[in-house]
Amino acid sequence: MAEGAKEKYVEELVDQSDDFSRWYNQVVRKAELADYAPVRGCMIIRPYGYAIWEHIQRLLDARFKETGVMNAYFPLLIPRSFLEREAKHVEGFAPEVAWVTRGGGEELEEPLAIRPTSETIIGYSFARWIQSYRDLPLLINLWNNVMRWEKRTVLFLRTAEFLWQEGHTAHRTLEEAEERTRLMLEVYRSFVQEDLAIPVLHGRKSENEKFAGALRTYSLEAMMRDGKALQSATSHNLGHNFAQSFDIQYLDADGQRKYCATTSWGLSTRIIGAIIMVHGDESGLILPPHVAPYQAVVVPIWRKDADQGAIMEAIGRIERMLKGKVRLKVDLSDNTPGWKFNEWELRGVPVRIEIGPRDVQNNSVVLVRRDNRAKEAVAIDALETRLPELLAEVQQALFQRALAFREEHTYYAETYDEFKEIMSEKRGFVRVKWAEDSEAELAIKEETKATLRVIPFDQPEGGVQGRCFYTGKPATCEAVFARSY
Amino acid sequence: MAEGAKEKYVEELVDQSDDFSRWYNQVVRKAELADYAPVRGCMIIRPYGYAIWEHIQRLLDARFKETGVMNAYFPLLIPRSFLEREAKHVEGFAPEVAWVTRGGGEELEEPLAIRPTSETIIGYSFARWIQSYRDLPLLINLWNNVMRWEKRTVLFLRTAEFLWQEGHTAHRTLEEAEERTRLMLEVYRSFVQEDLAIPVLHGRKSENEKFAGALRTYSLEAMMRDGKALQSATSHNLGHNFAQSFDIQYLDADGQRKYCATTSWGLSTRIIGAIIMVHGDESGLILPPHVAPYQAVVVPIWRKDADQGAIMEAIGRIERMLKGKVRLKVDLSDNTPGWKFNEWELRGVPVRIEIGPRDVQNNSVVLVRRDNRAKEAVAIDALETRLPELLAEVQQALFQRALAFREEHTYYAETYDEFKEIMSEKRGFVRVKWAEDSEAELAIKEETKATLRVIPFDQPEGGVQGRCFYTGKPATCEAVFARSY
Repeated sequence: MAEGAKEKYVEELVDQSDDFSRWYNQVVRKAELADYAPVRGCMIIRPYGYAIWEHIQRLLDARFKETGVMNAYFPLLIPRSFLEREAKHVEGFAPEVAWVTRGGGEELEEPLAIRPTSETIIGYSFARWIQSYRDLPLLINLWNNVMRWEKRTVLFLRTAEFLWQEGHTAHRTLEEAEERTRLMLEVYRSFVQEDLAIPVLHGRKSENEKFAGALRTYSLEAMMRDGKALQSATSHNLGHNFAQSFDIQYLDADGQRKYCATTSWGLSTRIIGAIIMVHGDESGLILPPHVAPYQAVVVPIWRKDADQGAIMEAIGRIERMLKGKVRLKVDLSDNTPGWKFNEWELRGVPVRIEIGPRDVQNNSVVLVRRDNRAKEAVAIDALETRLPELLAEVQQALFQRALAFREEHTYYAETYDEFKEIMSEKRGFVRVKWAEDSEAELAIKEETKATLRVIPFDQPEGGVQGRCFYTGKPATCEAVFARSY
Repeated sequence: MAEGAKEKYVEELVDQSDDFSRWYNQVVRKAELADYAPVRGCMIIRPYGYAIWEHIQRLLDARFKETGVMNAYFPLLIPRSFLEREAKHVEGFAPEVAWVTRGGGEELEEPLAIRPTSETIIGYSFARWIQSYRDLPLLINLWNNVMRWEKRTVLFLRTAEFLWQEGHTAHRTLEEAEERTRLMLEVYRSFVQEDLAIPVLHGRKSENEKFAGALRTYSLEAMMRDGKALQSATSHNLGHNFAQSFDIQYLDADGQRKYCATTSWGLSTRIIGAIIMVHGDESGLILPPHVAPYQAVVVPIWRKDADQGAIMEAIGRIERMLKGKVRLKVDLSDNTPGWKFNEWELRGVPVRIEIGPRDVQNNSVVLVRRDNRAKEAVAIDALETRLPELLAEVQQALFQRALAFREEHTYYAETYDEFKEIMSEKRGFVRVKWAEDSEAELAIKEETKATLRVIPFDQPEGGVQGRCFYTGKPATCEAVFARSY
């Protein structure tokens, strides 16, 4: 749209290494992914950004359903008394809640919270729905909007309102709940790695960083191109905490009434921020083909006065050939080819299809990859097989590049001095030997701004030897620290 | 789930003709479509009900996209000052608004409305996005939740929060806006008739019944089995009203700045209420195959102690054969076949597949239609072609049955006495000659509770002759009155 176009000309995209956060904001705005709303901290997700979310929803939803999860809808508003039933939960969320106090012209007797998350109202319903062990497991997912009144906001990464999915399950035993918690983390991990081409560390959160009310929280952590970590999805084993607060019981086969064990797990529009910050470069966005609104863009190369008939005919043939196979955009606007190249590079379309008079004569086109700008001439008749293949290559290459970047920017620190040196001079993840200690963790955060991102599942075989880099106590695990979004 | 199962046994489904609204509420609860939430007037849409909504979204969204519409997301909260900018709009919606007055532990300077609809915040954004005629038309749709603080609520039909889609478009001219308004009504009409098997009248709303802030409102009206009308979708030509309030202007090709003409159009979870009330019968729900979560249910008929191997093997074969072609449920629970028949009839599954030991010997199954209980034996190998065919026949039959019902219950009144007699003794639609008159309309509503549902597009050829049934003035059109939801 014109405003965006104008802005593109007046302001060059800043270099990632000069000012990463300015680069990020420029890309979000120039690529027309999102805008700030006239309500503080809220976001308008524009069609191009929302189309990415639609692909995320489609792909992730199918993975959920394969594990037996069904979608439902729960109300936006939650009575204050519900939030207060689980002590840790209310402590964690109350400061960020937006309250409805008037409705239909009257003051409400009890203020209603706009859901910051739905564990409490889910707990209320599960308690009514579940009677016996035959009703278990109960596996529900919600695609909805939630609200957390954040002070500092960044588009996609931290906004007062955001879109997400929140899954909620109830089980007979703690073991089953643990299994489901891990299963959903694995669903996220394969989705994020395979569909978004983002390599992740997966593992357990520390006590300090776990979800308010959880027994145990697992997460995925991805490295952005400024070396910071972004928590990409979380899966919580809630144990019996919510079941006890909301009286979620079932009659077991042995005739005893028992508490269910519950879980919850979520992924939000924040992940779009990760896509931008993991794959983007000096020319703008690079979208993984699986979630790109347009997987390829056709740019005709012609002179204004030249005969366009032959090219248009070839384009028509290409469109028919690729229909239902590749998500194609044909750019027939009045802009110059050079303008179009920049525009679609900025918007991250994975492959450009150039077609000029000579190409038509040769019955071929030129394919240009967005990620490495490699070019190849391809016969039009071969597009049907070559283009999907090339898109798969791009998807794979994006993952490999991001993985290599993460490996290059992952350090091992033996001592706290080494740790501080890395944190002040380099950017990235620091892996250390660790004797789990919440106070030490807070002290490290205070001094270095680095937090314990994750205790990876991937631990040395035979257990960790040696001492904690910070306390000198016998280490119990390896942990990964980083600054984070 | 057990609670539902228990309830089914203790309370028989009431007869439609004895107490239609009780029948409706029982079906919604027993079929586990929805529940009341612990927040006044809000609804929990349970997995079986939500699955219907997912099919509605999928089918309708594809129809929108075929007309060039793209999805986006706009914020939940709207500043009070926005709502107040369009005078008629605020007058219509202010009494039903829920207000957020506190967030993040502080009183807000300006109360924020939970969106009752998004025309105002869309107007704000369109004004920023649209610069020139090249940006037009702008065609956006939102799938979201909205809130209207209703006093009396009924699940799906009238709840404080509901799910819907709201489309918003901006155009160069009033003519283009009118064309889009009509196009989207036609998209709804074909969707509702073809996918939901619900016959509808389509036409224009009277001045009294149009949307708050619209130039002109079109709607679809369907007849429920109690003879009442349900407005199933609306499409509004907003003219220049919102463009002027929000300064949505564009630079035209002639160098002049002009106001856009805008439209909006919506369909909500209310339509699930229409599906229930148009197709349901004394045994419960009947779902049109296009949106049924399960299009067919397999019920094995075996004795507890008998050999189940052969039947299980045949079921496995059927599942593999129909995978990706028919949405199939296989009921292997411990319940008796008779219990399962009742259960899946109540839940409206269009076709039941019975398979017993003799069927397996004959390499066949018995198909039973939910709508008319017709049975047929079909060779297992023929299921792949016969079942989809049968589902198409059921879809068609449901539409024809509903159309016949509407025609049987549509009356023509020449005089107001006739009109009142029909309204008091019969149930259905009354078609009359009408000289558009808002005061007469209100008087009729006052006395008979009937409202002017629609001025159908389908009018007598060559124009209406004769006089208005109420005022005696020369008639300008035919109109349809009914009591409504």
